[in-house]
Amino acid sequence: MTFLASDAVGLATSIRRGKTRATTVVKETLQKIEKLNPTLNCFTTVTAETALIQARQIDTEREQGKPLGPLAGVPFAVKNLFDIAGVVTLAGSKINQDNSPAIREATALSRLKKAGAILVGALNMDEYAYGFVTENSHYGATPNPLDITRISGGSSGGSAAAVAGDLVTFSLGSDTNGSIRVPAAFCGLYGFKPTYGRLSRAGTFLFSSSLDHIGPFARSVRDIATIFDLLQGEDPRDPVCTKRPPHPCLPELDAGIEGVRIAIADDYFSEGAEPEALKAVEAIAELLGVKQRITIPQADRARAAAYIITASEGSNLHLANLKTRLQDFDPATRDRFLAGALIPADWYIQAQRFRRWYRDRLREVFQQVDIILAPTTPCVAPAIGQEKITIAGEEIVIRPNLGRFTQPLSFVGLPVLSFPIKQPKSLPLGVQLIAAPYQEATILKVAKFLEDQLTSK
Amino acid sequence: MTFLASDAVGLATSIRRGKTRATTVVKETLQKIEKLNPTLNCFTTVTAETALIQARQIDTEREQGKPLGPLAGVPFAVKNLFDIAGVVTLAGSKINQDNSPAIREATALSRLKKAGAILVGALNMDEYAYGFVTENSHYGATPNPLDITRISGGSSGGSAAAVAGDLVTFSLGSDTNGSIRVPAAFCGLYGFKPTYGRLSRAGTFLFSSSLDHIGPFARSVRDIATIFDLLQGEDPRDPVCTKRPPHPCLPELDAGIEGVRIAIADDYFSEGAEPEALKAVEAIAELLGVKQRITIPQADRARAAAYIITASEGSNLHLANLKTRLQDFDPATRDRFLAGALIPADWYIQAQRFRRWYRDRLREVFQQVDIILAPTTPCVAPAIGQEKITIAGEEIVIRPNLGRFTQPLSFVGLPVLSFPIKQPKSLPLGVQLIAAPYQEATILKVAKFLEDQLTSK
Repeated sequence: MTFLASDAVGLATSIRRGKTRATTVVKETLQKIEKLNPTLNCFTTVTAETALIQARQIDTEREQGKPLGPLAGVPFAVKNLFDIAGVVTLAGSKINQDNSPAIREATALSRLKKAGAILVGALNMDEYAYGFVTENSHYGATPNPLDITRISGGSSGGSAAAVAGDLVTFSLGSDTNGSIRVPAAFCGLYGFKPTYGRLSRAGTFLFSSSLDHIGPFARSVRDIATIFDLLQGEDPRDPVCTKRPPHPCLPELDAGIEGVRIAIADDYFSEGAEPEALKAVEAIAELLGVKQRITIPQADRARAAAYIITASEGSNLHLANLKTRLQDFDPATRDRFLAGALIPADWYIQAQRFRRWYRDRLREVFQQVDIILAPTTPCVAPAIGQEKITIAGEEIVIRPNLGRFTQPLSFVGLPVLSFPIKQPKSLPLGVQLIAAPYQEATILKVAKFLEDQLTSK
Repeated sequence: MTFLASDAVGLATSIRRGKTRATTVVKETLQKIEKLNPTLNCFTTVTAETALIQARQIDTEREQGKPLGPLAGVPFAVKNLFDIAGVVTLAGSKINQDNSPAIREATALSRLKKAGAILVGALNMDEYAYGFVTENSHYGATPNPLDITRISGGSSGGSAAAVAGDLVTFSLGSDTNGSIRVPAAFCGLYGFKPTYGRLSRAGTFLFSSSLDHIGPFARSVRDIATIFDLLQGEDPRDPVCTKRPPHPCLPELDAGIEGVRIAIADDYFSEGAEPEALKAVEAIAELLGVKQRITIPQADRARAAAYIITASEGSNLHLANLKTRLQDFDPATRDRFLAGALIPADWYIQAQRFRRWYRDRLREVFQQVDIILAPTTPCVAPAIGQEKITIAGEEIVIRPNLGRFTQPLSFVGLPVLSFPIKQPKSLPLGVQLIAAPYQEATILKVAKFLEDQLTSK
């Protein structure tokens, strides 16, 4: 169990037991950010002052014998589309610099702070979350901490790099078409996108409302489960947030995988990827003793429909600025927003109709299996600035194709964990563990089983 | 109580008591249809054979002392967009003539038949329910039985005319933007559009899914309540149909109006209408002792958004045929469908966003009142073929403006009854009784109170 010292639960335990102090941890974190951020370019804002105040308070409470929250003293940071009180919510844009600082904090932030976690800043992303690369024309690219000539992935690239570069212990990002899962895979982390509507999005700068999710990046399954459990629960501030009671996953984490029906996604999900990405899936399947294959029908069409809905909803959100401040957009998002503004309503309605059909088909698929395995990305992190890549013998444009395997799943709001696959002679990859809506607990216990298998080797 | 002999409940009582036989009633009905339909042009299909079989069965059951359903022996007919087993569902079009006959009956039809009502045929409408006039280029116009130089209104014109012309005792129609309420007002009938999702639409040829409702035309409030109660209830065939338990309205029909907060809609709803239409509302308000006025905000924008959504969803549904069989459409719908196919997704998404805002505002309005009164149409039925009309001193195109007062209400699925207003020297008008979602019982008890007041005069 080599990760324990460095995961959030481990760190909170050390602080609770008095092995270290929250103030020490936060000071070291701030020093590390100061030293490494010029290279890693994860942070767009560092909230040093409030972090130190909160750390001192936790240390005082501990000294007074008060009970500490499950993440007390653990530094974390959030994608800069989460509202932080007193900070302007950039959402990766130049235009939003003109907005007033947020008054009220995002619900997810409040819940984590209430559990003692200490916010140290806001993280870089693709402008308005529209991208898979975090090569932001206003705030620069965020290199991959495992190889700084490569991208971290996006759009939550800063959130992944800050954890992978050990600047914070965990982070939050958002995922519309793969924006948590892609950078998690590229940076060798767990990235979790729960069911659509499961976690409150209140106080976040949305991109495409019918597709947006929030979720955590972390270094261990128990961290993911702890954070997810803390974030669950109804929120009157977010009308999309479910009114279902929370389903805590931590208690079931070590339940094992007996009785869990697992299959490998074939067809679309076994094509258009580098051999190593498909081998990673096979390796995970072998650890789980899985041979069954299952077909998700019309995944290609699901991806096309996800594009249409994303571009249409995204451009609707930004139309006023597209009309008046076009030159202030990042060129990488600008042209796609403009194209999105020209999509006919007929395409959008057809995409939404297909979505209902596809949701029904996936409901049928999940009557046969509980967990589906698929690659997260078709390849490891490409170089910064790289435009094209040869995958399976075909030269293709990189940016849109990084979402090949993630888009058809978020399209209907399925919960997915990207499980990190370390490769000895290459950069890491990810394998997606996919479940039916609201079956996050099943995903996490399978992930925990895999993590235990891999760390005991 | 002059209507009793001729309403559905009255007729069913006569049959149950042996004063007349179902077979006699159906034979007389079929003779009347044969005689009057060449002039009134309501029916596109007459189901004489199956109607007579059902009538004989009811008579036999009665003779055997078996219990009869609440509408046993009562003839009715449906807009030709309801599936009738063995009949091609035309939905007012030429194109649908190429379809196979329906195998399974619409849920609404099955439920009424189970209650003993006898279907005698299918009724004329605007092509694909897109219109307020029932001047169908394939099947002809359906004149108003009260003045055959005038229109019956639409799109459920045949459904209104068949009842107003006394060809059947009640009928079913559909309402997307006013297609039940407008013809009900023009033909002097009760026309009821319950809450969106309250009644199953399974087995109907839809127009604009997010706006379509079905509902009855009848001559008495107790008929409307009886039919509505029979049609309520979950239906696995219609995913939009509510899973709420039915709320029977008949038991509360005579509860009176004490404690019911009623107001007249002002602003938008008191403009753009002929003086007699506004006077009808005042007369109803006086009968109810109501002086309070209330504002529904941004009703004009709601109407505009309803147009965008209707045209976009409607043209999406028909796009394949618009591409290949344009000449087979009714010219009156064709050009609007084509225009609808060119609407940008941005407009559609904006209209849906506004819809959520407007729904929230109406929720606030209904915290202050229970029932809102508004005109159904801005004028009485215009002449067949008439293009323009002068309303409130302004010459306007008739067709789109007939929905001025109905569109902003169906837009967010509110339940509305069009209450008939007989005018001594002119054609009838309607007053809308509008309630919050799922408050149909309140509407019907207020309507019953008004009906009692008017019939006791």
